[in-house]
Amino acid sequence: MNGKKVVIIGGVALGPKAACRLKRLEPDAEVVIVDQDEYVSYGGCGIPYFISGDVNSVQDLMSTSFHMLRTPQFFQDVKDVRVRVRTRATAIDRVKRTVRVLDLASGVEDDLPYDQLVIATGSTPNKPPIPGIDLPGVTSVTNLHSAMAVKDMLSTGKVERAVIVGAGAIGCEMAEALGDLWGIETHLVEIEDQVLPGILAPSLAAIVRNHLEEKGVQVRLGRRVAEIRRDKEDGGLEVELKPEEIIRTELVITAAGVRPNTELARSARLATGPSGAIIVNEMLQTSDPRIFAGGDCIEIAHLITGKPVFFPQGSLANRQGRVIGTNLAGGAAKFKGTVGSFSMKVFDLGVASTGITPQAALKNGFDPESVLVVQADRAHFYPTQDLMYFHMTVDRKTRRILGAQAVGANGDAVAGRINSIAAILPFKPTVEDISNLEIAYSPPFASALDVVNATGNTAENILDGLNRPMEPGEFERCFLIEESADCLCLDVRSPANAAPFVERYGSRWLNIPQETLNKRMDEVPRDKRLLLVCNSGVRSYEAMRQLERAGIKNTMNVQGGVAALKKSGAFPKAPKSEGGDSRD
Amino acid sequence: MNGKKVVIIGGVALGPKAACRLKRLEPDAEVVIVDQDEYVSYGGCGIPYFISGDVNSVQDLMSTSFHMLRTPQFFQDVKDVRVRVRTRATAIDRVKRTVRVLDLASGVEDDLPYDQLVIATGSTPNKPPIPGIDLPGVTSVTNLHSAMAVKDMLSTGKVERAVIVGAGAIGCEMAEALGDLWGIETHLVEIEDQVLPGILAPSLAAIVRNHLEEKGVQVRLGRRVAEIRRDKEDGGLEVELKPEEIIRTELVITAAGVRPNTELARSARLATGPSGAIIVNEMLQTSDPRIFAGGDCIEIAHLITGKPVFFPQGSLANRQGRVIGTNLAGGAAKFKGTVGSFSMKVFDLGVASTGITPQAALKNGFDPESVLVVQADRAHFYPTQDLMYFHMTVDRKTRRILGAQAVGANGDAVAGRINSIAAILPFKPTVEDISNLEIAYSPPFASALDVVNATGNTAENILDGLNRPMEPGEFERCFLIEESADCLCLDVRSPANAAPFVERYGSRWLNIPQETLNKRMDEVPRDKRLLLVCNSGVRSYEAMRQLERAGIKNTMNVQGGVAALKKSGAFPKAPKSEGGDSRD
Repeated sequence: MNGKKVVIIGGVALGPKAACRLKRLEPDAEVVIVDQDEYVSYGGCGIPYFISGDVNSVQDLMSTSFHMLRTPQFFQDVKDVRVRVRTRATAIDRVKRTVRVLDLASGVEDDLPYDQLVIATGSTPNKPPIPGIDLPGVTSVTNLHSAMAVKDMLSTGKVERAVIVGAGAIGCEMAEALGDLWGIETHLVEIEDQVLPGILAPSLAAIVRNHLEEKGVQVRLGRRVAEIRRDKEDGGLEVELKPEEIIRTELVITAAGVRPNTELARSARLATGPSGAIIVNEMLQTSDPRIFAGGDCIEIAHLITGKPVFFPQGSLANRQGRVIGTNLAGGAAKFKGTVGSFSMKVFDLGVASTGITPQAALKNGFDPESVLVVQADRAHFYPTQDLMYFHMTVDRKTRRILGAQAVGANGDAVAGRINSIAAILPFKPTVEDISNLEIAYSPPFASALDVVNATGNTAENILDGLNRPMEPGEFERCFLIEESADCLCLDVRSPANAAPFVERYGSRWLNIPQETLNKRMDEVPRDKRLLLVCNSGVRSYEAMRQLERAGIKNTMNVQGGVAALKKSGAFPKAPKSEGGDSRD
Repeated sequence: MNGKKVVIIGGVALGPKAACRLKRLEPDAEVVIVDQDEYVSYGGCGIPYFISGDVNSVQDLMSTSFHMLRTPQFFQDVKDVRVRVRTRATAIDRVKRTVRVLDLASGVEDDLPYDQLVIATGSTPNKPPIPGIDLPGVTSVTNLHSAMAVKDMLSTGKVERAVIVGAGAIGCEMAEALGDLWGIETHLVEIEDQVLPGILAPSLAAIVRNHLEEKGVQVRLGRRVAEIRRDKEDGGLEVELKPEEIIRTELVITAAGVRPNTELARSARLATGPSGAIIVNEMLQTSDPRIFAGGDCIEIAHLITGKPVFFPQGSLANRQGRVIGTNLAGGAAKFKGTVGSFSMKVFDLGVASTGITPQAALKNGFDPESVLVVQADRAHFYPTQDLMYFHMTVDRKTRRILGAQAVGANGDAVAGRINSIAAILPFKPTVEDISNLEIAYSPPFASALDVVNATGNTAENILDGLNRPMEPGEFERCFLIEESADCLCLDVRSPANAAPFVERYGSRWLNIPQETLNKRMDEVPRDKRLLLVCNSGVRSYEAMRQLERAGIKNTMNVQGGVAALKKSGAFPKAPKSEGGDSRD
């Protein structure tokens, strides 16, 4: 064999993928993967499910779909790829084309020559600058070692309470893992004022937060961890929050994001970008065309904002790995960027998102409108239907879709809808394109006018000034919390559904069913700002049109209606039982 | 009120949608819907679920999502739309701008003046030219009357056997409805050689056929019904098939497609197209710009072939209804056509499709390649994972995607993947676009390299000549049925999985596990055509690359592997229990 020499630094996700693709295209290539860890090629995104017990053993995360362990021996025998574990790359010499590596067991160093090099060094969890962050019992869960340590600790039965620092995706997944199977009293602390900040619009984040609380997770928003101390009495930990609270616990898990591992690339003077990660072109070459990079250590183009982003995710790493493998073999495959898609399960809720949030849209100079639609995820008459809460961010000026997010009980249905939007996002669709997006119809799997299309229609109505929306959070603030005297809620549902609310909120909650509104128009007060409510926002929109015709224009339509308000826990002391049926 | 006058002929799906949209935009419009039936605005696609009992009553199909019956009174009170039921439109006078209508109860005729007219006359079930088709006990199930009649008949308990004529979507749904809840011995007769002809590729149709049979449905392919006779002895029915078979039954349901109702449009000299349906432009205007048409009576552009098609479907009718409503109000909304998406449930299988089949691709002048991938529908280590069978049709010359179809146990996951492909189909994607389609990743909802991306990659490998595919049906024909002497099956799974097959097929079934292949290359016969098999087609592809390197090129990769063969019932007498695990 006199194939070219390819060295790959990093043995998780991207590295092995690039190596195997290259070997299938160019069997003579001599490929070596080095990794400082003893474990390679595992599914890191499965760690929360390993800790929860959904996945039995770490071996499951390290196996192929046909149950073969991806060990160095496996790579040697099956793929003809050499894997050197516990071997750290310490320097790249771009002139000599060598990588200096250190065998961590023996301490021996040697130089690996390369014709082409791949940097797949991944990322490292951020360590928040908190006094006590290095105490025993404080850990992240981003690799198999820490995951096994946490699971071992849980297995002793000595962990009664846990504090998770950061309510991003990993934080929420860990809250489920600890609470669901292990029954641990779990506190989820987040410095921002919502869970999943940067990922979900506030209206959907409120639903996820409420669901976490319903499942027993203690959610603390807008709080930072000031200090972690060893408890002198029982040897446990004390977590001090600001504003003031002290939580006694046995386990603190930090989930404050990750940062790209770029030390090696920087010291080899490869270009890095504003996000701090390595810059690559569409063929995933670094500033040195012999050196490729991919996965959690690079920045890529965000196809909505057009700006480079650091967006670490296992699926992107896998796809980038194949692109690099192809290009190592002389191909010209391209990775064009991301629309920022994301999915997760939080207890019984599926959550998915693509594009950017309204907050991110504002920061990027767009003029965002939030559209929230609540509708059955299949034909409303089909027995397994459940409500989906669908949010879309659109740019008022261009009518362009900037992002879409959804939550619902049927996670596959949620993710499927978001994936359909994600597919067209690179083509810069407008609201009209979403109104007409083709969703394969049959009663078990979609509505005749699907929630996706309904969201497009609602967005169109809002942009055209036919529907003046109010977000559930805004309703909660002005009607429920501040009890603004100039606001009146006009509930257009049936009397049976409205009665408990009329009873509770008195003259501030007026009930005129939508089908009787035209005849009872003179009962509608004209000196108040009317907040129109039905169960989902559909009939209240119709009511808005009826009122408009009668000259009553000081109205707002509460998006998602009572369904969204309830789902986000906005009525904390509302009567438990209501007349009629919950979908009205 | 001096609004313009709008007459809508047809009160199901499109008609009411157009009327309500118009009224929201232009409240002064005077809108009347006429329909010859007594029932309007029901969900016709729900009929199989009403018959099965999944949906309790016809009222459920006629209600809004907030449980309000869509009666004429409802439309009058809530929508300010007049609905005249049991009223038949008999002629359109385009000069006077009137519609002649006949009140079916009183026999009185009158003329309705219009400024704008909407034709939403829908479709009528095809009646196959079979002697005896009009006998009592022979019916279609395309409207509420026939559906109620069938359900009443089933409720008597006197139906022990049923024959369904036509294995299209309605035929398959009815087979489930009759078999699942009612326990009726059901015979499904189809003149073509597969179920769901024109909808599914043969490899997936075989899986659906096998599933129907597993559920007890007697599927008869390539048979036509020659005659239906009254049985002289017991008063039941005798159905005579060709080739020869006679089935005694109490109920015959015809499901042989529908044809557009265009008599009214034709006699008004509105243009109709090659499909026989009414021609409309993108604004859904007929050849008379004052007259709009939509739903099951028009033809629309197929966005893959560019040709007009008759593609009746409730969801398209609803979307077209909104477009017409907007345009009646002076808007300029467009309906650009369809990519032909479709979904259905067949017992425990979800089925979805978009674009065109390989057969249709051939007919339309493409050079189609069939790509079949079998992969878990979520992370392979996630407990609820199940295999998805994913088929894609690509054009060899242009690498363009022509269609995609899938079946699997998790119907929402199946439909979601197909919807993501459907979303980009209008943009004429190539296989590379599918390799990089962004599927929101987390272990509960997707694979790190999702089945969609894997299908793109496999297509790329096939088009690039790296992977020479053989369809499961072709393997079944040449290896299992014809037992071609020049073919040898090389099974690269583990010995435990391969053993029962080696035992059964002897020297024709050779087992060399893929991880040992490089070392055992001299055991591979070089004088035979090798059919490479693993469980899914992935390791057999790797084996093909290994063999190629060793100079062995007379190989074919059996797509979908043993999983696809088993799922389509290709091994009828195979040993029940195999060693190892079924996913290997």
